[in-house]
Amino acid sequence: MTGESRPIDLKNVKINDPFWKGEMELVRKEVIPYQWEAINDRVEGAEPSFAMRNFKLAGRITAKRRELSDDYREVIWPVDIFQTLPKDMDHLEDRFYGFLFQDTDFSKWIEAVGYSLTQHPDPELEKTADEAIDIVCAAQQDNGYLDTYYIINDMSRIFTNLRDHHELYCLGHLVEGAVAYYLATGKDKLLNAAKRFADYVYSRFGKEEGKIHGYPGHEIAEMALVRLYEVSGDEKYLELSRYFIDERGTRPYYFDKEHPGEEEKRGGKPGYHYHQAHVPVRQQDEAVGHAVRAVYLYSGMADVARLTGDESLKQACRRLFDNIVNKKMYITGGIGGTNIGEAFSFNYDLPNDLAYSETCAAIGLVFFARRMLQMDADSRYADVMERALYNTVLSGMALDGKSFFYVNPLEVNPKACHEDARKAHVKPVRQKWFGCACCPPNIARLVSSVAAYAYTESEDTLFMHLYVGGTVKKEYPEGSVVWEVDADIMDKSRVRVVCSEAAPEGTEGTIAIRIPDWCDSYTLSCKDHAHELHKGYEYIRGTFRKGEEIELVFDKKLKIMQAASAVSEDHGKVALSYGPFVYCIEEKDNGKDLHLLSVDTDASKAVFEKTVIAGNEATRIIMPGKREKIRDGALYSEYRAAEYEDAKLIFIPYYTWANRGEGEMRVWIGR
Amino acid sequence: MTGESRPIDLKNVKINDPFWKGEMELVRKEVIPYQWEAINDRVEGAEPSFAMRNFKLAGRITAKRRELSDDYREVIWPVDIFQTLPKDMDHLEDRFYGFLFQDTDFSKWIEAVGYSLTQHPDPELEKTADEAIDIVCAAQQDNGYLDTYYIINDMSRIFTNLRDHHELYCLGHLVEGAVAYYLATGKDKLLNAAKRFADYVYSRFGKEEGKIHGYPGHEIAEMALVRLYEVSGDEKYLELSRYFIDERGTRPYYFDKEHPGEEEKRGGKPGYHYHQAHVPVRQQDEAVGHAVRAVYLYSGMADVARLTGDESLKQACRRLFDNIVNKKMYITGGIGGTNIGEAFSFNYDLPNDLAYSETCAAIGLVFFARRMLQMDADSRYADVMERALYNTVLSGMALDGKSFFYVNPLEVNPKACHEDARKAHVKPVRQKWFGCACCPPNIARLVSSVAAYAYTESEDTLFMHLYVGGTVKKEYPEGSVVWEVDADIMDKSRVRVVCSEAAPEGTEGTIAIRIPDWCDSYTLSCKDHAHELHKGYEYIRGTFRKGEEIELVFDKKLKIMQAASAVSEDHGKVALSYGPFVYCIEEKDNGKDLHLLSVDTDASKAVFEKTVIAGNEATRIIMPGKREKIRDGALYSEYRAAEYEDAKLIFIPYYTWANRGEGEMRVWIGR
Repeated sequence: MTGESRPIDLKNVKINDPFWKGEMELVRKEVIPYQWEAINDRVEGAEPSFAMRNFKLAGRITAKRRELSDDYREVIWPVDIFQTLPKDMDHLEDRFYGFLFQDTDFSKWIEAVGYSLTQHPDPELEKTADEAIDIVCAAQQDNGYLDTYYIINDMSRIFTNLRDHHELYCLGHLVEGAVAYYLATGKDKLLNAAKRFADYVYSRFGKEEGKIHGYPGHEIAEMALVRLYEVSGDEKYLELSRYFIDERGTRPYYFDKEHPGEEEKRGGKPGYHYHQAHVPVRQQDEAVGHAVRAVYLYSGMADVARLTGDESLKQACRRLFDNIVNKKMYITGGIGGTNIGEAFSFNYDLPNDLAYSETCAAIGLVFFARRMLQMDADSRYADVMERALYNTVLSGMALDGKSFFYVNPLEVNPKACHEDARKAHVKPVRQKWFGCACCPPNIARLVSSVAAYAYTESEDTLFMHLYVGGTVKKEYPEGSVVWEVDADIMDKSRVRVVCSEAAPEGTEGTIAIRIPDWCDSYTLSCKDHAHELHKGYEYIRGTFRKGEEIELVFDKKLKIMQAASAVSEDHGKVALSYGPFVYCIEEKDNGKDLHLLSVDTDASKAVFEKTVIAGNEATRIIMPGKREKIRDGALYSEYRAAEYEDAKLIFIPYYTWANRGEGEMRVWIGR
Repeated sequence: MTGESRPIDLKNVKINDPFWKGEMELVRKEVIPYQWEAINDRVEGAEPSFAMRNFKLAGRITAKRRELSDDYREVIWPVDIFQTLPKDMDHLEDRFYGFLFQDTDFSKWIEAVGYSLTQHPDPELEKTADEAIDIVCAAQQDNGYLDTYYIINDMSRIFTNLRDHHELYCLGHLVEGAVAYYLATGKDKLLNAAKRFADYVYSRFGKEEGKIHGYPGHEIAEMALVRLYEVSGDEKYLELSRYFIDERGTRPYYFDKEHPGEEEKRGGKPGYHYHQAHVPVRQQDEAVGHAVRAVYLYSGMADVARLTGDESLKQACRRLFDNIVNKKMYITGGIGGTNIGEAFSFNYDLPNDLAYSETCAAIGLVFFARRMLQMDADSRYADVMERALYNTVLSGMALDGKSFFYVNPLEVNPKACHEDARKAHVKPVRQKWFGCACCPPNIARLVSSVAAYAYTESEDTLFMHLYVGGTVKKEYPEGSVVWEVDADIMDKSRVRVVCSEAAPEGTEGTIAIRIPDWCDSYTLSCKDHAHELHKGYEYIRGTFRKGEEIELVFDKKLKIMQAASAVSEDHGKVALSYGPFVYCIEEKDNGKDLHLLSVDTDASKAVFEKTVIAGNEATRIIMPGKREKIRDGALYSEYRAAEYEDAKLIFIPYYTWANRGEGEMRVWIGR
């Protein structure tokens, strides 16, 4: 019973889960094609991405530069990253457009494409992808460097602003995309390009004299390099990742060297919390700064800690995970209490209406949680992963896959979104596409690789962390066991696993199924196989034969939840959850002035109803409650006991909110 | 029984009220001398004001300009208003320093000095003031222009940016200061300078062709010019004020003419809400934009409406007043729900912890309310004036007069102030002095002229709006009546008015005493004089004889208040008020985690106790309540009924908060 595991090879899984199959088909049919149009600037009414355009221009420059043997300089410097967009797309200058990290629009797309191809081969999509890869690879410099912003503008300035520019972030996403595409198709052109870029970075960064003693301003390279190491077996990528992690936050600050005078501005105080670079990572015990950056870093730390057995790094990961989960996470699994810096706020500061709770940050928390799980198969990590995934991540995408939330508030008054600049970041309905297109493609790559979060494996054991139905193959030296997993989490409160193909007689194996935090009790049927509960997983061991069935029946009940006393925002309120889903109330079902509603706390009074929300099936919950009658009169008056009328409160799953137009919404409700 | 009135001449009042005398002495002994040091850049550790320094430099330039017959140009343009302050005050360049409106630091000081001299003659202070006036007047241009920013920088650019620069704002404050000093001392040097500046503005602005068709970006000139008209009798000042009011918000926007392209940026939509210039003032029915600017404008509108009998303007004033009072005012009389633009938020959006509620805005609301009262002696205006004055205005100054709040929140968690950038504007303790020194001198000028808010008069009637003890003289054609007013509002629930000097036998007069909104019943003793209640005032009419006494005894009780249903921030909460004072709870008296406290709503259980807060006497109120016990455990857990322990909640008057160090504070408390 070993705790460590690795994600399952996506090619060994075929998802047919009614819920997840639908989500993945949305990504395949809606998001990926839309995204391709978007990165080619062909979406009417959306801000252009410029990603492919920049690659094409960079490719021409690279070719020209080869001709001119390094004398070519098309210096347009410094480029205003908030430049006004051109009005006439047909007459663009030959220059870089968009954010500095615009290359990653392509990288995230190709990553989603890779995952999607493992589940649904599509020669036409693969052809498009290959052509795009040709364009991208043509931009690569002979030394391996590949970031169009600097290739187009000024190669002499590369790696001079690690803090604010995003070269190592672009490297990270390129690696993730290249690995995914390689694993899906076996084609290594992009993988080799990513390796060459990583090799070049390896040659330029490190402890040695003459090398750059820096680290990424926006993390992701840390975990991406580990992935490259795992695919290639080349130790230097692990070494580089570890270097970035170890160097981070050491004094004097590398970012200060890049930006002289910063130390003075701070008056000698520690800085760079925004970048998680305020102290060395092993000294960190509170999740701070930009939430996406933070969980990307922690994910890389967890990877390196697991692979190197670095106990102090493991401990830092556990402290940071615990800090998030015990003090800084919304009940929806969202993180980032403040829009200022898209960041974690202080402990227990979890405002519902001002929340940032970025979709990408929840995705990053899923990454981090799975890596903690890989380190130690403890269901509490999976509980968090599930919470973030089924609520905030899914909330990020409309039920039709056509619009997206960056920000996932737990309370919305549309009037405030429109008229209060403090809540300008909170949108009452999803938006089509963004100039900074981080969240939509991030959802695409996570949803299309959900099997890698649902299932991990060790030599002996197949871990089932999430209940995602499909066919799952576990390979043993002697042969494979194939399991048919029937796990419709939306509708049913059980998971059934049937052995459809057995390993050769005598092969022993283990399947470990998570017992979720939302069930108080369960029944396991596994014939006469030995089973044992360990850290929230039922380990069922045996020589499985074809047709053998394991069934786990959960006691799935409505839970009336409350927040810790220290969360003043939620004081006196409750939230409903049912299975992995957090629920909310919307104006559409409950009328205006949701703050006047209160809910009965007796969960046994709940009525569950099948419903259809924007064409999608869902379970809604009807609870008795009260509506406080509106008092007429003055803004302030003497207190008199409020009058109430009975109300039926209609709750819908949080991820389905804002799919029926604009209106008020609340997760936390008076009791 | 006429509704209209004018403020009493401050020389006809001697305040000896124990509460107000103390406040005024603080201003006289602490604030005015400190302010003088501040505007001369002699306060260690405080940001320099540069006000007197700029005037001195401007004076030299003006003298030089006379010598050089207009050829002198010392162009330093444009000056960065957020310029880094010089490190070495001894070696400043000859240039303008500070904010564009830095001149007003002097004007507010001289205004406070004027008021103070009426109550407390002080030859030394008057000498200092005269010398300062000499310096200021020396800076004036031959044409009357007087704003050091442009005098120092570039006279060819005056009046080219009314929207963002503050020339007309400087004019307004100069007039206010000059009038106050003239009325106190009879000295007209500064008054004449102010008139000459106003004359020059009159010559440049107006409907006529060739004149500037603009109006102030920051209002105040509107009401100041009315004051100048009232003192001088010169109609042109009233005319100019009315012009500014009538022109405001007309299309095309004057500010667009100054700043071409603004119309295009807005896509043809109305703009300039921040400046209350989005539509003509007579079409406005919602208080919007920068709160100080708004109430300054409305004050000027009320003045002009009263003096010109302009019914449509009166109606606009009433609508705007009602909108504030019914939808946009904190229970403390504070206004401005958002720090973004220091502005009104939307109707009923009154967040307690994010409040802006600027001291100056409450002062402006006092101005506006008194002008509404002058238009129509209806006690509902006085109720608002009193609420703002006794709570938010007084909260603006420490009990020792040495530190100040700009922002007056109704809920504070010091951790949030320090760590949450969204609340960076909220300070948990008062600050010494500010680079933008609007609030401290504004408090000084209001407190030292409080008699002009407590008392107004018409030909026949002396109005007592606030209960401020002292000697008050009402002049009649036949002679004067002097009243001794005993009105210790802090301690007593009655006001006693004794005639200490009667007018000649046969002179009839009226004294009108307000019945406050915080008393449910009262007893009036006025011998055999006729009396009548009208719009919240008891009008007592008669021939008053020496020694005659009128007494009004109020039924002053603790009130447990609630907010309207639409104020979601205050839902389920109550606030305590007692007489004019709103109360709050502080960590100092009640421990941490104030959100866990709830108060009994039975006001009869209140215990009143004399106490001393930072050396000042006050009444504290002890109420039974509950403290919810802290639950240990997870951030989210299944709801179980909370456990409570009995608690004694100790309330102190809101204006005394944060005088005993840093800690949590709340006005609105669970019930």
